Amino acid sequence: MGIGKQLAEVEETLEKAVASDVEPLSKASKHIIRGGGKRLRPRVVLLSYLAAGGRDASSAVSLAAAVELLHTASLVHDDINDQSDMRRGRATVNAQWGDRVALLAGDFMFIRLLSLIAPFGRRVIQTLADCCTAIVEGETLQMLGVTHDEMTEELYLNTIRLKTASLFSAGAELGGMLAEGTEQQIAALRSYGVNLGMAFQIRDDTLDLVGKREALGKPVALDLEQGKMSLATLFALRTSEGAKEVLSSKNPAQVMDLLQQSGALEYAMQRARDYSNWGKDALSTMPPSQAIAELTELADFAVRRDR
Amino acid sequence: MGIGKQLAEVEETLEKAVASDVEPLSKASKHIIRGGGKRLRPRVVLLSYLAAGGRDASSAVSLAAAVELLHTASLVHDDINDQSDMRRGRATVNAQWGDRVALLAGDFMFIRLLSLIAPFGRRVIQTLADCCTAIVEGETLQMLGVTHDEMTEELYLNTIRLKTASLFSAGAELGGMLAEGTEQQIAALRSYGVNLGMAFQIRDDTLDLVGKREALGKPVALDLEQGKMSLATLFALRTSEGAKEVLSSKNPAQVMDLLQQSGALEYAMQRARDYSNWGKDALSTMPPSQAIAELTELADFAVRRDR
Repeated sequence: MGIGKQLAEVEETLEKAVASDVEPLSKASKHIIRGGGKRLRPRVVLLSYLAAGGRDASSAVSLAAAVELLHTASLVHDDINDQSDMRRGRATVNAQWGDRVALLAGDFMFIRLLSLIAPFGRRVIQTLADCCTAIVEGETLQMLGVTHDEMTEELYLNTIRLKTASLFSAGAELGGMLAEGTEQQIAALRSYGVNLGMAFQIRDDTLDLVGKREALGKPVALDLEQGKMSLATLFALRTSEGAKEVLSSKNPAQVMDLLQQSGALEYAMQRARDYSNWGKDALSTMPPSQAIAELTELADFAVRRDR
Repeated sequence: MGIGKQLAEVEETLEKAVASDVEPLSKASKHIIRGGGKRLRPRVVLLSYLAAGGRDASSAVSLAAAVELLHTASLVHDDINDQSDMRRGRATVNAQWGDRVALLAGDFMFIRLLSLIAPFGRRVIQTLADCCTAIVEGETLQMLGVTHDEMTEELYLNTIRLKTASLFSAGAELGGMLAEGTEQQIAALRSYGVNLGMAFQIRDDTLDLVGKREALGKPVALDLEQGKMSLATLFALRTSEGAKEVLSSKNPAQVMDLLQQSGALEYAMQRARDYSNWGKDALSTMPPSQAIAELTELADFAVRRDR
């Protein structure tokens, strides 16, 4: 029994959640929602629910949609702050509607998530509240890292733990809670989620350095241009003399040479694989099932995907 | 028995709610929170709680703080979109920390409210969710009104109902719910709140036209410069030929002449008094108490205040 039906229900729930008489809000929200994305986070919620013994995955659909809506809202505000104009191969909300509408559309999507979670109990809401706080703190740290030019590997890992891994972790945990899994199962899912999120983001930041515009749907090395760091660039800065000059030259060929020859790319990929493996280890404490197999496959996908 | 102690607890709760290891978030949040304001919304929550028979006003403190936090978060995002640099006589968050930190600080304050409301039940959270949606829809309508130059009195009233009155209404309703008041009491409080909010915003928009920078802590007629409407300007446009030219001249003396001679100011003030009276009427169905007397006084204050 797969989760195809529930993923379709997530799409419907997202569309309904952002309906509004105020057209630009619903149009801008639907624009980014329909832009797709891999729906990794809803998958994690639904599969975690099943892995913890839940019997009716449809009952996890609104939390799965809430988690995706939160992610999407944060992308919209991110794109304003980064002045990005492309996302998933389409115009960003700020590029198409301007910063002011994008600011309010992001607020709107975030706010609509409240209605999705209102029926759930204190623990669910508190878990989402903590995760929301982590995301905003992580986004802020990332921005300050850029401004202050003082990013370290520790700060980088802490930043992506807050801004990315916390939501995967909360999603997995919420699935487990909703299924009324044991505390041990919920803890295993949380650990799976955080490690999956770390692997995913490390690989994502590395792909930004080596990826092609076509494959990623956003300009190559945009993060690098904006001074954003990745494990690979941090490794190169730490181990290679002259790395700073090469990285600030923004010459893609030179940057790529540096990252390959210093072993920086391989280092980053290995760290991503480490997190992926830790995530799979956490799952190994749970009873085998198709859901566990699919969660394992997601952890493999996170370090294999080229888009 | 007044609510002085609980208002002090609201301040403490607000400060604690925005604590963060990520310094700019807590600093920016505390900057605007400590900027003061009249704390009208927390007063409405606390007094409504008492008016509906609640016995321990301290139990309403976290909802009172949540409502103020929501209001404050919306101000921070508002000031970005309006490019305002002064608020309550101090620099706005965007003026002091820049738009990017202000965007995240607004998100942060909004998100922290989730933790404050997590312990409450579905009805409380759904009420806040609906009110949040209304605020963002109202802000968006206001912005579009400016852009499309098609504001009407009906649209203006609908806009302020969404962006301002909905929060007063929710605050009063939440106080009544928390006190476990009767449905009739809760409905009366809701009606009080919406009318108080309408009176307050109509008066506020009128004060922007006639007020002094010193009294209001923000530049005179900034709203007018930005093309924002008020009942007075809409009345003048509807009743006086040549009003459009005068209003777009942005000559303060000419604008004031127009608004006075056309009866526009008096019209707006009368509408504010109407709403204030309807609010007081709603209260008259509830048993008399000190809390009711103070809510009545707030409704008078809303149309009397010069700051």
